[in-house]
Amino acid sequence: MPIGRWAPVSHPDVATVEVDEVLKALADPTRRQIVRLLMTDGDRPCGTFGLPVAASTLSHHFRTLRKAGILRQYDDGRQRMNTLRLDELDRRFPGLVRAVLDAG
Amino acid sequence: MPIGRWAPVSHPDVATVEVDEVLKALADPTRRQIVRLLMTDGDRPCGTFGLPVAASTLSHHFRTLRKAGILRQYDDGRQRMNTLRLDELDRRFPGLVRAVLDAG
Repeated sequence: MPIGRWAPVSHPDVATVEVDEVLKALADPTRRQIVRLLMTDGDRPCGTFGLPVAASTLSHHFRTLRKAGILRQYDDGRQRMNTLRLDELDRRFPGLVRAVLDAG
Repeated sequence: MPIGRWAPVSHPDVATVEVDEVLKALADPTRRQIVRLLMTDGDRPCGTFGLPVAASTLSHHFRTLRKAGILRQYDDGRQRMNTLRLDELDRRFPGLVRAVLDAG
């Protein structure tokens, strides 16, 4: 893989995402913290979340959130950026993500 | 075990239940259906939910919901009854259960 390139990633159509997958993705405190940081601070690169977990674990968390339709990843030069898909999710599951984040 | 007696069951203090456990318990359509039926129809025995799953699977679902603090089981003669702990859960996680049920 050339420097500055990441493996391409796919993003599900939120219309096809099941609530089970969203709940499982959010049933983890580190993943909820990722969502919270994106919600409050906006888009950011994977390496800047300051979470006390190994890079491989963090990579798994981002993948889980991406496959559940919760975030979208895109490349910005050498950085893999993350952005929440909250508007899309809210149209499909109104209030769900916020209710979960409010719960802890 | 004498006829009409069930193995004793324990119920967690909802104050000790983590949101992860509630989300995982609700990340299953059959378990959400159990919760919905209890919400609309009130207390009922395990055998009366009319769900298309094996008895052992159903037993697992009830146990998962009980351990997550979502329902309470009690014996009424030969029947094991189920009751929702929605008021307790709502005090700990306001609006969470309804937001999940509304989602699907």
